[in-house]
Amino acid sequence: MRIAVLGTGLIGGSVGLAARERVAGVEVSGYDPDPGAARAALERGALDAVAESVADTIAGASACFCCAPVGTLPELVCEALAGAPADCVVTDVGSTKRAIAAASNHERFVPGHPVAGAETAGIEHARADLFEGATWYLTPREHTSGLLYERLHRLVAALGAHPVAIDPDTHDRLLAAVSHLPHVIANVLVARVAGLAAESEGGVPRVGPSFRDATRVAGANPAIWADIYASNAGAIAAEIDAAVDALREVSESLRSGDAEAITAWSDAARADRARVLEAELVGGPGHELRLTVPNRPGIVAQVALALGRAGVNIVDLALAPAADMSSGAMTLWVVGDETAERARELIEELGFPVEVHA
Amino acid sequence: MRIAVLGTGLIGGSVGLAARERVAGVEVSGYDPDPGAARAALERGALDAVAESVADTIAGASACFCCAPVGTLPELVCEALAGAPADCVVTDVGSTKRAIAAASNHERFVPGHPVAGAETAGIEHARADLFEGATWYLTPREHTSGLLYERLHRLVAALGAHPVAIDPDTHDRLLAAVSHLPHVIANVLVARVAGLAAESEGGVPRVGPSFRDATRVAGANPAIWADIYASNAGAIAAEIDAAVDALREVSESLRSGDAEAITAWSDAARADRARVLEAELVGGPGHELRLTVPNRPGIVAQVALALGRAGVNIVDLALAPAADMSSGAMTLWVVGDETAERARELIEELGFPVEVHA
Repeated sequence: MRIAVLGTGLIGGSVGLAARERVAGVEVSGYDPDPGAARAALERGALDAVAESVADTIAGASACFCCAPVGTLPELVCEALAGAPADCVVTDVGSTKRAIAAASNHERFVPGHPVAGAETAGIEHARADLFEGATWYLTPREHTSGLLYERLHRLVAALGAHPVAIDPDTHDRLLAAVSHLPHVIANVLVARVAGLAAESEGGVPRVGPSFRDATRVAGANPAIWADIYASNAGAIAAEIDAAVDALREVSESLRSGDAEAITAWSDAARADRARVLEAELVGGPGHELRLTVPNRPGIVAQVALALGRAGVNIVDLALAPAADMSSGAMTLWVVGDETAERARELIEELGFPVEVHA
Repeated sequence: MRIAVLGTGLIGGSVGLAARERVAGVEVSGYDPDPGAARAALERGALDAVAESVADTIAGASACFCCAPVGTLPELVCEALAGAPADCVVTDVGSTKRAIAAASNHERFVPGHPVAGAETAGIEHARADLFEGATWYLTPREHTSGLLYERLHRLVAALGAHPVAIDPDTHDRLLAAVSHLPHVIANVLVARVAGLAAESEGGVPRVGPSFRDATRVAGANPAIWADIYASNAGAIAAEIDAAVDALREVSESLRSGDAEAITAWSDAARADRARVLEAELVGGPGHELRLTVPNRPGIVAQVALALGRAGVNIVDLALAPAADMSSGAMTLWVVGDETAERARELIEELGFPVEVHA
């Protein structure tokens, strides 16, 4: 299997390192507009070969990862799709997905987003285990090729990540809440404390570990974040507005001395955090779900999105089209008894027969 | 030296453990309104003896630590001061300082706040190194006994902490910015993500490490935080307002597509964070400053506050009153050439002669 990596920085380099370490018989070719970056990736062992152009890199590839800054991705993805073999899945790794998904409706293009490594950049930080245990969002659309989606899903899982299907709009709104807003707030917090320092005659206040944690991402990677803010401005602004409303409620409770409201709000936060973090834990017994589906475009995306929306993590999936191509056997693996039961219900709601095997 | 610990939970227990491990010839007596908690502290080795009452605990003590929740501290501190020997310094460990400082103007009372361990509670989490490297705020006032302040400063440093002098109002405003506001925001962030989960048909969104870090303190220790919110409501509400204003500016820049403003703001955050965290690093050569001061009430507080305001960390200090008590030799130790130079300037501005020794 040949993998093309376009852009050999932190993410592209880590894709190459992980693939060469974990995928049997793989051959990784890479290209970077900066020839020095491509050579460095070759020296780090992230690539088998450096190509001279996008077209050369992708020739003969089964999968292509476009690993460029968000602002330049639409052009790069279209160039990759133009040069990609008929049997090659093309994906990108941008941190926002709506703009890039709008850039191409090609059936071989599956936009993606590995949630990893946002705080560093460059091939020198690349590592084979960067994606180990990380969520890797994939945004299949109605017209996405089911077979190519399956290949990308398996490949991403082979790199150590947990592939999660999601639609581009939901992805961008979700990331605005869990990632972009926390970045905005970290910036606001450090600016405020630095401002206090200026007010108080030059002494910078001492901060504790909770402040350090809360502001760990402040000002991270300005080049990447400028693109993220630009490509997800509306959703981030909406999240900021929601946070502002919530903060206002708290300051009103504080000013009016409403201890009961403050306690209820604080208790709720404790429960909310436990609930959010529990969802991260992978555990329990694995289950195999076998279903029969009509062999038509969009079917894989439909199942993956329905399960993804409900928080069901598909650990792996496999497709086996019938000889006459009229139907297909789809096999999914999920973890946990309850998760399997929930997946069964969701698939039955979609109208497909399903068997669950422990 | 006998130390009295009133309240033998996490902080009181850790004071006992640290003192018994680090202070030669110390004897720690402890009292807790819950006799089981005091017995547990004795069993953990945090105490030499359990006393039957506040008065019994403090009899013969040179220093008394009041380690109760913020809401009950005023009463406890007044009881301790009533029973304390003439030569005993009384301090508390509450997370806010204005309310408790207002509760007593006694010259032997030095309100304090060790910045450590806010996320757990109970003697089972107590440890001898809880204060190692932690900031321990002390709020001497004009009328504070210089000799007793010196004793507390040395004792706190012996427990492993960095004592920092600050006035109660500044303490509470500063903590609102570096601790209370981040807690409020962590609560708001988890509530929002949990709310998104509810909207999206039961699936809790996957969150990354940056979200986990930003919300680590969400809903921490509701009992302690209810008191903190109540006793510092005005300052916290003011910090929330400032954060709301800053967030609004960001959302306006995002909505108007002002990429330049966003980039400038993001770059500034990077610089701000570096500046704030650099101030935390202790390093460089140590210097001894010897100054001669008039032996009048408030002089130690005046020097300690002037240096604390300017971000100069006093690693240790010593007082030696002249035989006729009309003047005193005060010796300070600070770390770093620049810090020593700054300290010299500040002390000269106060009108005291000073020598700096490397």
